[in-house]
Amino acid sequence: MLSNIRIVLINTFHPGNVGAIARAMKNMGLSNLYLVDPNDYPSDEATSRAAGAVDLLENATIVSTLEEAISDCSLVIGTSARHRTFQLPIMNARECAETVIPEAKQHDVAIVFGRETTGLLNEEIAQCHRQVYIDANDEYPVLNISQAVQIVAYEIWMANQDQSIHAKETAEYPRKKEMDLFHEHLEETLYGLNFIIKNHPGKVLEKLQRFFNRSRPEKQELGILRGVLAAVQREANLTPSTKNSDAKDGSE
Amino acid sequence: MLSNIRIVLINTFHPGNVGAIARAMKNMGLSNLYLVDPNDYPSDEATSRAAGAVDLLENATIVSTLEEAISDCSLVIGTSARHRTFQLPIMNARECAETVIPEAKQHDVAIVFGRETTGLLNEEIAQCHRQVYIDANDEYPVLNISQAVQIVAYEIWMANQDQSIHAKETAEYPRKKEMDLFHEHLEETLYGLNFIIKNHPGKVLEKLQRFFNRSRPEKQELGILRGVLAAVQREANLTPSTKNSDAKDGSE
Repeated sequence: MLSNIRIVLINTFHPGNVGAIARAMKNMGLSNLYLVDPNDYPSDEATSRAAGAVDLLENATIVSTLEEAISDCSLVIGTSARHRTFQLPIMNARECAETVIPEAKQHDVAIVFGRETTGLLNEEIAQCHRQVYIDANDEYPVLNISQAVQIVAYEIWMANQDQSIHAKETAEYPRKKEMDLFHEHLEETLYGLNFIIKNHPGKVLEKLQRFFNRSRPEKQELGILRGVLAAVQREANLTPSTKNSDAKDGSE
Repeated sequence: MLSNIRIVLINTFHPGNVGAIARAMKNMGLSNLYLVDPNDYPSDEATSRAAGAVDLLENATIVSTLEEAISDCSLVIGTSARHRTFQLPIMNARECAETVIPEAKQHDVAIVFGRETTGLLNEEIAQCHRQVYIDANDEYPVLNISQAVQIVAYEIWMANQDQSIHAKETAEYPRKKEMDLFHEHLEETLYGLNFIIKNHPGKVLEKLQRFFNRSRPEKQELGILRGVLAAVQREANLTPSTKNSDAKDGSE
């Protein structure tokens, strides 16, 4: 599906930008790069900036007109500054991605970037169906072209992701009843230390409990914390209840 | 508010990247750039790539350690690849922005980027509260550093436009240096308890420090925790250092 999306660059001036764009594309799962009449290309500078995406440069399609780069596409989106009015429907990068992903399931889609200094000409915009802009600071809204491609490609990658993909949880966490034992152990120790007064615990105990619940110690961390409590009881000559006397010492 | 957010770059190798980052930041309304021990800087290459953001380079704060760059921040977020496991809570760039915007209303927030080739060292990650990664193609997930900053900054810009994110409430958090005092107090107390042995702390202290950084106690919770430590020192007849003797008792 991402393979149906192409990035089209018109008359790029700095070959380093082309390399940076190849890398930005590959980072975001895009592979089809079209270069319309590029300046100073191929170039070592492009290869160097492409880093691990040299394959995209090698497979890039080089053509001499925009027409050739987009003729087989069902949807062509031109990039522009936000306030330029070409009387085309305009979207930001996020909306663009949400439009492109469903379309690219069946058809080829092109996103067209203009020259570094002057952007797209009116006759080029006239070949597009939609415009996309990147939300930016009004005081200095002009992004480097490789950064603009990065954001557009990133939004496409994000839109293409399933929401359920998140960092896997690998740590082992204690069960509720182990946390309960910890809270009892903490409470007992704090009473022993006269840090809180029995029958008059105030808000302090509650706040500590909330903190430790929220912080969600891992199983091993909870073991260390209980070891600390046992050491406090030992050194301060407190009598631990039998239930909590088996908490391990952390120095093992 | 965006002015409370700083981008911290550690040991950048290519000055061109620093310039590109200054531009990416200004495009997204960020202005505070911290450079920790940059290589080959200042440089013409940085100035050239900064384009209309030379003012950010001129106003950049250059320091020699990460510590100096973040000590007045309440929230420090380190960037990393997605699958590296530092056992800190991990967010993608979008979630990071949603976390940063409410926090930056009141406090300084740092987002820390590591070296071009090797990223952040473990001891640098250990100074962070959270990790952020950029969603990317598993086959080639390593972005150029200026592109990574661009995406993080773009998400911050987008989140800052979103009124529903501004409505989020935040608790008050201690500054980094207050957390440092807590860690010293904890360490001192654990030595006093013979829970860990001086010059031979093993992994236990490190694991506890990691736990407390990750759990990110609120300001008031940290006060209670320090009160507990002071009570332990008192009841176990440990001698507190003068620095830590003013921690308040929780029973007030």
